[in-house]
Amino acid sequence: MQIWRVNVNTQTLNLEPVPSSWERLGGRGLIARILLDEVPPNCEPLGPKNKLLFCPGLLVGHMLSSCDRISIGGKSPLTGGVKEANAGGTTGLQMTLLGIKALIIEDWPARPGLWVLHLSAQGARFDPADDLAGLGVYETAARLIEKYGEKVAVALIGPGGEMKLHAAGIQNLDKDKVPSRIAARGGLGAVMASKGLKAVVIDAAGGQKPPIQNLEAYREAQKAFNKALMDHPQTHTYRDYGTAAMVNMCQTFGSLPTRGFSAGQFEQAQTLSGEHLRETILQRGGVSKPNHACMPGCAIQCSNIYGSPDGQEVLVSPIEYETIGLMGSNLGIGDLDVVARLNYAVNDLGLDTIDIGAALGVAAQAGLMDWGDGERALALIDEIRRNTPLGRILGNGAAMAGKVLGIERVPVSKNQAMAAYEPRAIKGTGVTYATSPQGGDHTAGLTIRDKINHLDPKGQVELSRTKQIAMAGYDTLGACIFAGFGFAAAPAGTIARLLNARYGWDLPDDILQVLGKETLKLEREFNRRAGFTAKDDRLPEWMTREPVPPTNAVFDVPPEEMDTLFDF
Amino acid sequence: MQIWRVNVNTQTLNLEPVPSSWERLGGRGLIARILLDEVPPNCEPLGPKNKLLFCPGLLVGHMLSSCDRISIGGKSPLTGGVKEANAGGTTGLQMTLLGIKALIIEDWPARPGLWVLHLSAQGARFDPADDLAGLGVYETAARLIEKYGEKVAVALIGPGGEMKLHAAGIQNLDKDKVPSRIAARGGLGAVMASKGLKAVVIDAAGGQKPPIQNLEAYREAQKAFNKALMDHPQTHTYRDYGTAAMVNMCQTFGSLPTRGFSAGQFEQAQTLSGEHLRETILQRGGVSKPNHACMPGCAIQCSNIYGSPDGQEVLVSPIEYETIGLMGSNLGIGDLDVVARLNYAVNDLGLDTIDIGAALGVAAQAGLMDWGDGERALALIDEIRRNTPLGRILGNGAAMAGKVLGIERVPVSKNQAMAAYEPRAIKGTGVTYATSPQGGDHTAGLTIRDKINHLDPKGQVELSRTKQIAMAGYDTLGACIFAGFGFAAAPAGTIARLLNARYGWDLPDDILQVLGKETLKLEREFNRRAGFTAKDDRLPEWMTREPVPPTNAVFDVPPEEMDTLFDF
Repeated sequence: MQIWRVNVNTQTLNLEPVPSSWERLGGRGLIARILLDEVPPNCEPLGPKNKLLFCPGLLVGHMLSSCDRISIGGKSPLTGGVKEANAGGTTGLQMTLLGIKALIIEDWPARPGLWVLHLSAQGARFDPADDLAGLGVYETAARLIEKYGEKVAVALIGPGGEMKLHAAGIQNLDKDKVPSRIAARGGLGAVMASKGLKAVVIDAAGGQKPPIQNLEAYREAQKAFNKALMDHPQTHTYRDYGTAAMVNMCQTFGSLPTRGFSAGQFEQAQTLSGEHLRETILQRGGVSKPNHACMPGCAIQCSNIYGSPDGQEVLVSPIEYETIGLMGSNLGIGDLDVVARLNYAVNDLGLDTIDIGAALGVAAQAGLMDWGDGERALALIDEIRRNTPLGRILGNGAAMAGKVLGIERVPVSKNQAMAAYEPRAIKGTGVTYATSPQGGDHTAGLTIRDKINHLDPKGQVELSRTKQIAMAGYDTLGACIFAGFGFAAAPAGTIARLLNARYGWDLPDDILQVLGKETLKLEREFNRRAGFTAKDDRLPEWMTREPVPPTNAVFDVPPEEMDTLFDF
Repeated sequence: MQIWRVNVNTQTLNLEPVPSSWERLGGRGLIARILLDEVPPNCEPLGPKNKLLFCPGLLVGHMLSSCDRISIGGKSPLTGGVKEANAGGTTGLQMTLLGIKALIIEDWPARPGLWVLHLSAQGARFDPADDLAGLGVYETAARLIEKYGEKVAVALIGPGGEMKLHAAGIQNLDKDKVPSRIAARGGLGAVMASKGLKAVVIDAAGGQKPPIQNLEAYREAQKAFNKALMDHPQTHTYRDYGTAAMVNMCQTFGSLPTRGFSAGQFEQAQTLSGEHLRETILQRGGVSKPNHACMPGCAIQCSNIYGSPDGQEVLVSPIEYETIGLMGSNLGIGDLDVVARLNYAVNDLGLDTIDIGAALGVAAQAGLMDWGDGERALALIDEIRRNTPLGRILGNGAAMAGKVLGIERVPVSKNQAMAAYEPRAIKGTGVTYATSPQGGDHTAGLTIRDKINHLDPKGQVELSRTKQIAMAGYDTLGACIFAGFGFAAAPAGTIARLLNARYGWDLPDDILQVLGKETLKLEREFNRRAGFTAKDDRLPEWMTREPVPPTNAVFDVPPEEMDTLFDF
């Protein structure tokens, strides 16, 4: 494995050995390490000193179920701090087959224009891509596949990235060549645009799977993991209902974001639920599929394909809970067909449905749309595509929309929109939103499945801490959040055995926690140097003041206790 | 003197004795002290925990030339930190005549609606003011004077404040009842709107000048000050040319902001100059006046009245250098009549011409107007008045305009637009912009008049420190920046003698520096608690990278040296 360092100014590639302090890191942890080592924390995120990083996780490369994720990172234009956003699809695997431990994209282009960065066993090449300017990700991906072949992996941006919007992500192809796996959060698509890149194409022809030092031990650990994963009830829940299973759970807890986070229950939750989604998909048949793997080899297959009523046309793939929560109930919309259309439109722009959904909720509060008006929501998304002033307000995400439109009630932390778990009703997740170095992000440490009184402020910091450490560990491994169910249920030390067998290391059984803690410390340090203080580890004031029905809870976890979260 | 504490929720006034730690402060210093004592530094600036403060300076009350300024403050919605903005006019004097040491306006209104807060010897009263909603400041002021009489002082907001725009200021009547004296910077007009107030009317009938403990000593010190002020050549420069005298000076230094801070000299500087302004005014005659006092008793009279060519109509009063720099050369506009129209329109909205001018420069970079197109600039200001999405982008100031429109080259510090001194060519003022707790602000410590090589990074931190201390001192006294010429030239200890004679104190000769240092320390502490770090004491990265013609200087004062500025 090597470091692939690409300079977009000189359009050159340097292959470098892996520094020893980077060797035992991957994914999210490696991104934090590289940012600390190489990127001035005060730099302008869209300037020449920021870097765009692609780091496959430590377990990536062998199609271990749900463990081939790619972490993409840089200094975030949205939060101003450390940013790692990860995705499934094929990018992580293909990069690893080429022997890429980390792809570091640096500097500014020497002249305007769009490029495709093509990576293969022959090295790096810049192909002019001005013909792709302004194209949505679906059309762009199709053209790139036509040009570069069926087997390539692609990471690409849409028009939202090209417009340097702070809610722009980076999409990746799923195993069926659809650019549906988005490293969505924190505006990394804008960073990619600042480097002049429309896409990174990875052609792994001639590459190979990374070596395994002790194949027998690896297979044994893999078997234990697979069994634990397949036996886990959540695996089946997610295969049947996808992440949309959370709709009913959140509705029960009063934590389903509704009409701009003004309530935690939505009267049309049933028609947004995972059960309803599955039923609809099965009824429609044709192109629709209730379960679908985003990465080759995934045993969970929580993804789905949502087709039109006649079964002929894909409306969007997949519909995820976060999108349902933010672009459905949060906008007062109870119709999955409408959510699917909004989802597709935002995907095609290459934007984060969470931050855009939250921004539309802000627009509704500002009187720019009525709750439940899907047509108006689509028209607002079209404003983004047309790069109008209103479009730019919304396309830069909820925090900026709130500031510009003069709306205080914005659900953000560190300027990043919260996911679809109302933090006043699920307070541990509120602690995660507040304190995570990543900003409002459910994947940084979701607490809703734990047996705890979610309304009681007591114990939430400790719970969030445990979850944040584990998630930072999984993100460093390249493991999906749901792979975690398998690892947690597998015999102790399964992760260490996998890593030791593959790399010939001698890691302790608690390596997940070791990696998670190291990653969080690195991220906190980057943010500290970028000027973050305790004030950035807070939820918005209005959430501490305004009760959310039906629980009528406010967010009341003591700030002083939150300030102890990283004391480990 | 007493503390007048007004709660807008209960619409009640409490009169309180002055706490001993507040007694020897006034103006800017007292604002910093009250903010630290009473306002949670992390609070939402437009929320119920912020407070709006009016504090006359320590010398206010006796019509000492140029020393009756009112300081208005609160936590800034623009910078997120401490904010003091001061203005001339009659507000400071009238408040002092009523015995108001500090007016503290707190909480949120119980119900929507606009109010006039009426203060008099009878106490406080809330008069409904919904009929004034949306009215510009000129019409509003006229109606208030009609209703409350010719003798009242008025502090009021325009539509920009009502829209809670972050560039909204608070206007005050000048001695001719025109609302031309604006506490412009940092969005305090939005804070006033968040308290439900369209105006504060001060009727000092029955009030009296504050006592003077030693009248003879006071008169003697006053005489020394007056003589020094009247003898100072700058006094005459400013009386003849107003602040517009700076146009030619900045043109010479290559520090006249031109076309979005892309150059430091403007080929049409001559037609914007103070000399041209004076000539035009004298030629036009009629309502025009080349000099005009904003406060009763001011000997400098740097203000002016700029009338139409036929001498019949006031186009605006006054035209100031900062407006000429930001809305003239910065927009490629070389016609004072155009600048006057832009100035009037922005005034009437109750907005800061510096931040709006800088925002229009951002708009021009984004392709939303051509350089030099005054009609388009007026149309963009009309977007603000109509509260359109584009209007809100611009009305929230340059920093937000840059973020939303995707323009990196924005001249701001701590989110506040820089004044009309290009900091790469006048590096000491660049240090002030970077490090002042107030954000980009020339009145926090202008260095252009000092005999130093302004392009050499050496010595600029020390010079800025000296200037910042003195200015924080003057702002605490209620003294205009130009009164400082007089104090500096007067016999040592003149300020101490004035204060000692008035209050019966025993202050040392260097009281200006003592007050300045204390004020800066308090402000820094508030900002620190609000989450500011060294990264907030920097100019934008692009100014360190991009040379500005004709000097081709970049901003290269070492950050580490700037970090020592407040080591006193």
